[in-house]
Amino acid sequence: MTPLAALTEGASFITVPVPLGDRAYDILVGRGLIETAGTRIARLGARAAAIVTDEHVGPLYAGLLAGALEAQGLRTSVVTLPPGEATKSYASLERVCDAVLAAKIERGDLVVALGGGVIGDLAGFAAAVARRGVRFVQVPTTLLSQVDSSVGGKTGINSRHGKNLVGAFHQPSLVLADTALLDTLPVREMRAGYAEVAKYGLIDDERFFSWCEANWQGVFAGGPERDEAVAQSCRAKAAVVVRDEHENGDRALLNLGHTFGHALERITAYDSARLVHGEGVAIGLALAFRFSAALGLCPPSDAERVEAHLSAAGLPTRLAHVPGGCGTVDDLLDAMAQDKKVKGGALTFILARGIGQSFIAPGIEADKVRSFLDSELDPSRS
Amino acid sequence: MTPLAALTEGASFITVPVPLGDRAYDILVGRGLIETAGTRIARLGARAAAIVTDEHVGPLYAGLLAGALEAQGLRTSVVTLPPGEATKSYASLERVCDAVLAAKIERGDLVVALGGGVIGDLAGFAAAVARRGVRFVQVPTTLLSQVDSSVGGKTGINSRHGKNLVGAFHQPSLVLADTALLDTLPVREMRAGYAEVAKYGLIDDERFFSWCEANWQGVFAGGPERDEAVAQSCRAKAAVVVRDEHENGDRALLNLGHTFGHALERITAYDSARLVHGEGVAIGLALAFRFSAALGLCPPSDAERVEAHLSAAGLPTRLAHVPGGCGTVDDLLDAMAQDKKVKGGALTFILARGIGQSFIAPGIEADKVRSFLDSELDPSRS
Ligand SMILES: NC(=O)c1ccc[n+]([C@@H]2O[C@H](COP(=O)([O-])OP(=O)(O)OC[C@H]3O[C@@H](n4cnc5c(N)ncnc54)[C@H](O)[C@@H]3O)[C@@H](O)[C@H]2O)c1
Ligand SMILES: NC(=O)c1ccc[n+]([C@@H]2O[C@H](COP(=O)([O-])OP(=O)(O)OC[C@H]3O[C@@H](n4cnc5c(N)ncnc54)[C@H](O)[C@@H]3O)[C@@H](O)[C@H]2O)c1
Repeated sequence: MTPLAALTEGASFITVPVPLGDRAYDILVGRGLIETAGTRIARLGARAAAIVTDEHVGPLYAGLLAGALEAQGLRTSVVTLPPGEATKSYASLERVCDAVLAAKIERGDLVVALGGGVIGDLAGFAAAVARRGVRFVQVPTTLLSQVDSSVGGKTGINSRHGKNLVGAFHQPSLVLADTALLDTLPVREMRAGYAEVAKYGLIDDERFFSWCEANWQGVFAGGPERDEAVAQSCRAKAAVVVRDEHENGDRALLNLGHTFGHALERITAYDSARLVHGEGVAIGLALAFRFSAALGLCPPSDAERVEAHLSAAGLPTRLAHVPGGCGTVDDLLDAMAQDKKVKGGALTFILARGIGQSFIAPGIEADKVRSFLDSELDPSRS
Repeated sequence: MTPLAALTEGASFITVPVPLGDRAYDILVGRGLIETAGTRIARLGARAAAIVTDEHVGPLYAGLLAGALEAQGLRTSVVTLPPGEATKSYASLERVCDAVLAAKIERGDLVVALGGGVIGDLAGFAAAVARRGVRFVQVPTTLLSQVDSSVGGKTGINSRHGKNLVGAFHQPSLVLADTALLDTLPVREMRAGYAEVAKYGLIDDERFFSWCEANWQGVFAGGPERDEAVAQSCRAKAAVVVRDEHENGDRALLNLGHTFGHALERITAYDSARLVHGEGVAIGLALAFRFSAALGLCPPSDAERVEAHLSAAGLPTRLAHVPGGCGTVDDLLDAMAQDKKVKGGALTFILARGIGQSFIAPGIEADKVRSFLDSELDPSRS
């Protein structure tokens, strides 16, 4: 097989391989990839493709993508769902599976997810279960999905018992991260995705965090820095996924900022008017570093640097920044206790000894969390 | 680990290993296994078990099984669904996943399917997707599920586009086939399962088919022949599954009798008052052998032997035996063409050169099928 990087269609792009044995695939990152998606996807050997998208993204890009696929002789259909987190439901799963089966997608054919993380998670799950598994391609259209949700094979829907509680591990056959698609993304969504970009530096790559501090404006503006940031994030996530595909250990580091973040999402009832996932993560990252500092694990100056950078990029970093408030310390602790990372009463956090030095800290006592949150909620501090 | 066969709880039983690498498991076959299920299931290291059952089976056996589990300190819950094929739906999937999550089943814990193939397929699928996969144990309670559906890891639900079109490959951690549970099974269900038992002989084991001819009454009566027949069927199915876990080749042999059988089920609208799956399979087996004979592949005497044995066991063997009729030749061909085994216009059949000598025959021309069905529908023949 010709290495994908050696092919010459369209503009130049970066290839990030995800070496997962017989489930290995490439992530291509670059501007304009969607225009040449036809040849790349046809090369996977499918005869038909069912595009899954949402009502924001479909009108902008589904025609372009469908045209590119049809031009290569792929029988193409499109199913369009309402945008938003509520779309990650059993009812949508049924709708997408029905559309995939109606489109006579066979085991060799493809489901193509064209959208943000909501569409990627839903369409990937439908691909995992329709005919007990058909292949799928991710064409992520948000920064968050390009740097996070489209990589790693976690797919799923939400349950009344919590987010992402029903799903499958199902790796895509190809990820096309066309960074030009982000030009139409609302800036708030751009920022939310950026919190995950910064997270990769904070986890284990101080150099990348420094690069972010120097180059974040280019990421937002759509210069070559954007492609670099997406590619580097994908490399970071791919490396963790390859070490721990089914999330039994290491992969938990990716949850840096997420224990607090998820609690805030829960408290704001997943109301995106109040808080989107990436905003919760941004506050969570700042809290994880301040908590690490409070525990004497991490220099306070590192926690300050984290907060300063996220703020510069327009992200919230304090509990007080949650529109409508975030309740009491008990509300927060309750919301955290519902998180799946809670085992046997004690809380597991991802903490840090400094920027780029995060680690899994199981068995953090509730008392320590409580007094930290007390100080965070104290208006004299925030 | 102690080999399970060496353990002494309860009466003696037969162990059939399914050597699938890191997904290997044992099938235990014997009378009274449910009473000692607690120790066996506790040995898997779970702390909680969610039993999934139906309204026929639950009242008979769920209390016994739950008691056995609770006696071993497993936190146990029961969710009971309506009996019947309609239960293999998205709505039931949601109900079971909700129950599993409400019972706080974690990745190390268990879903336990207590019922026939409907419950096994549904609960297995829920286990595959709840928290992106928890372990499950099959306690099959019909002959069909003991010899067929509980072995091999195919799980799923039905879609408006066809049966079993949405699901997952998810191997159980243990199968407990308690043959005493079949004592309460309606004889019609017993016969339907028996068609699958006979099928294993017909596929590739003439000796087993001869054994069936001599011993089938003991299988129905519940003597040691029943355990033998279940164990031998499980061995046969396990061998095929191990060769072809994800149904890319060989596993298709298990569909002997099923191309015709599925068409008949479709024509009778899956109305179990008219035809249950195993009855369709019985007619399908007889047809597959007569078709093989008509094509000059198989001695007519073998086809007659197949029909004679299935009839002796009280099973239908002719299109004319379908209550309410089976429509015209075109109806049958249409119904067959909808089957997933149809590729590129030509029909794939499982045919036989004799009893125990089945093979995959792709590309059978519709004309040949048509003239065979014509002769079968001709009242002067049947
Ligand atoms: N699978 C994983 O590993 C993983 C990881 C992180 C997050 N997630 C999931 O991802 C989801 C969040 O993803 P998201 O932030 O991409 O949200 P999203 O999919 O809801 O997209 C955000 C909004 O942007 C719109 N949009 C998308 N692309 C656009 C474009 N190019 N131009 C204009 N508008 C566009 C969407 O219609 C939507 O309104 C959550 O459900 C979360 O659970 C999954
Ligand atoms: N996963 C696979 O590989 C596979 C293989 C073959 C069939 N199947 C599926 O299996 C299903 C059919 O399974 P089935 O024939 O077991 O049907 P079933 O589960 O509907 O059970 C048949 C009937 O018997 C009742 N019953 C079950 N056990 C009983 C007992 N011990 N005493 C009294 N009543 C009892 C049930 O309530 C039901 O009414 C179909 O949905 C088919 O698609 C799956």
